[in-house]
Amino acid sequence: MKNKRVYFDNSATTPVDPEVVQEMQPYFGSIFGNASSFHFFGREAGKALEDSRAKVAALLNAEPSEIIFTGCGTESDNIAIFGILNAYGKKGHIVTSKIEHHAVLYSCKRLEELGYEVTYLDVDKDGVVSVDDLLKAVKDNTLLVTLMHANNEVGAIQPIEEISVALKTINEKRKDKIYFHTDAVQTTGKIHIDVKKLGVDLLSLSSHKFHGPKGVGALYIKKGTNIAPVMFGGHHENGIRPGTENIPYIAGLAKALELANRRITDQNKHMLHLREKLKKGIIETIPEVIINGSNEKAVSSILNVSFNYIEGEAMLLKLDMEGVAASTGSACASGSSEPSHVLSAMCVDPVASQGAVRFSFSHQNTEEEVDYVLSVLPKIVESLRAMSPVWNTKKQGS
Amino acid sequence: MKNKRVYFDNSATTPVDPEVVQEMQPYFGSIFGNASSFHFFGREAGKALEDSRAKVAALLNAEPSEIIFTGCGTESDNIAIFGILNAYGKKGHIVTSKIEHHAVLYSCKRLEELGYEVTYLDVDKDGVVSVDDLLKAVKDNTLLVTLMHANNEVGAIQPIEEISVALKTINEKRKDKIYFHTDAVQTTGKIHIDVKKLGVDLLSLSSHKFHGPKGVGALYIKKGTNIAPVMFGGHHENGIRPGTENIPYIAGLAKALELANRRITDQNKHMLHLREKLKKGIIETIPEVIINGSNEKAVSSILNVSFNYIEGEAMLLKLDMEGVAASTGSACASGSSEPSHVLSAMCVDPVASQGAVRFSFSHQNTEEEVDYVLSVLPKIVESLRAMSPVWNTKKQGS
Repeated sequence: MKNKRVYFDNSATTPVDPEVVQEMQPYFGSIFGNASSFHFFGREAGKALEDSRAKVAALLNAEPSEIIFTGCGTESDNIAIFGILNAYGKKGHIVTSKIEHHAVLYSCKRLEELGYEVTYLDVDKDGVVSVDDLLKAVKDNTLLVTLMHANNEVGAIQPIEEISVALKTINEKRKDKIYFHTDAVQTTGKIHIDVKKLGVDLLSLSSHKFHGPKGVGALYIKKGTNIAPVMFGGHHENGIRPGTENIPYIAGLAKALELANRRITDQNKHMLHLREKLKKGIIETIPEVIINGSNEKAVSSILNVSFNYIEGEAMLLKLDMEGVAASTGSACASGSSEPSHVLSAMCVDPVASQGAVRFSFSHQNTEEEVDYVLSVLPKIVESLRAMSPVWNTKKQGS
Repeated sequence: MKNKRVYFDNSATTPVDPEVVQEMQPYFGSIFGNASSFHFFGREAGKALEDSRAKVAALLNAEPSEIIFTGCGTESDNIAIFGILNAYGKKGHIVTSKIEHHAVLYSCKRLEELGYEVTYLDVDKDGVVSVDDLLKAVKDNTLLVTLMHANNEVGAIQPIEEISVALKTINEKRKDKIYFHTDAVQTTGKIHIDVKKLGVDLLSLSSHKFHGPKGVGALYIKKGTNIAPVMFGGHHENGIRPGTENIPYIAGLAKALELANRRITDQNKHMLHLREKLKKGIIETIPEVIINGSNEKAVSSILNVSFNYIEGEAMLLKLDMEGVAASTGSACASGSSEPSHVLSAMCVDPVASQGAVRFSFSHQNTEEEVDYVLSVLPKIVESLRAMSPVWNTKKQGS
């Protein structure tokens, strides 16, 4: 089993689907024009761009003019947040949560430096924001609510639709509309995204989380939204995102979303099966484990488990030696020794938080891979706990 | 000759080199990890990232830690300009030129909105900035000079080295360093870029201008430069550019730069030959044409010609019908009916400016393609001038 490799880190990134790789190839070859160019080569590229936009729009139940392509999910989040506030051109108040991805969280920190006021909402033990809390947080000068669709560490799905409905009522009585943005990076391709049903004004997604290429994202911007660019240059993407369009990846994103949406039901059934099997196996074979978050209120792709009295990073190291790829949380925050801000917000006990490991699945994972992980986990946990003074004291005491 | 296609718009974008396409493939396949991930898959991706960084750094005579990868040349320019000023955290004065790409020009317009003062330097009839003018423009509160390496419409090369030397002397006597950024998007792969020789603090480049993929750029940031991010998220790229790294394209950029630098001498000789042949042919067969800029002071890839009494856009349409791709100027500004800001700054007569066409070459173009263009140009010009009242009056008068 020396070269065994199990990839259970699909929330960090996913392998590109071979059909997507195929889809991109013509745009590395004969269809290479600049989509802004006037001539045949440009028109060919422009057609691919607009076909992709129409496809993505249809898959999200949006209009093509409501979709812009970006360089990544982080960029989509930044354009949404700073774009809305730049368009307002005045300082105000923003509501977000304590469990956002760093793309949103650090954007909000930056806003505070710039003189904006930000409310960071608490979450319950399942990692879910309360609609009541959110509505109570709204102030006269609130300009934007930005709340992720599902959390990237524990998978907790947020009540986006309910909040949209409530904000709509509030907005009817206001001059300055409160815009509503959601980071749907962890749900796109796992939950059918219908922007009209969600009721949001802006929605970010990232191709590489659903078997598309890394380096391209999209942002849904509802018709009539007053938004300004955050970077400056050519008039690409409705004047919101300058830079020569990356046609291969944009076509790849569209294809990946099409494939993901097509397999969504089967995929979720499959991932749910793998997750429950892994969860059951862990609980049955390893003492002192805690499942973080409520799997019933979460996407099926994530299992977050705390192995008490162990450092998560040490677990990853040992798992890696056995060929298993998992993570402690966001890849974007890896290397950081700080405890997870998500688990802290969920009031997970610090001891448990330290030992948290995220296993995240895709449709490509197999039951056999779960069996393999279950075969190596108990001995890893045992060997690490053997080095823990607290564990040894506890064991002797029992 | 119905399906004849000649691509003379290589300053807008270039076809991806097949060797570059090949180089990228493994990263769409088995090496798919997130470079920030801790495990085997992540380390593999991280190694590709750092190998690419080292390769690009070596090709530019920089240190690997001085290179960050971005989503495009426009993003590199935006990070350079806003990054330096955000780090200063105070308003001040910026010096640029009237002939910059819109990525720089519109960033500077935005700075003016934000309360910065910007000096836009004139250029001479060849499209070249005067070093004296630049030095005279420097004020006590100047924080940044941003000046392109070569212009994208006429190819004019700017005196970057001379300016660097002069700024160095000025900086020795100042508390607030004047940072020096150059947009080298039109020169990278056409002129050997040596950042130490150029003496700049920041240098932007874009992969798709030298037969790499669209959607990836790089920014050289000299060691010790005080720069802040302009977008917020994970700690990627030295904390300056958040977002999961696009490994296939980054590896592609590195390969494309390697290939471009390797063929640079032969390529320039070849492009020069094509340009001179086209220029000579045009001058000999078509009356009332003006060559814009001085080809001696420009990159060999660009020929900008004004066909008097004709609209450039009409020329492009007719050329396109004959299968020839050219442009009136920047693809990023195509569709705009405004006269070229570059030609205006060069004091090109408005009549000539209106009829300006840019032909831009790559090593892939052939002499036979020039012959073909020369075979179709005179009749196109004649047919368009036949519709021009001014031309007809002039002709009757002569």
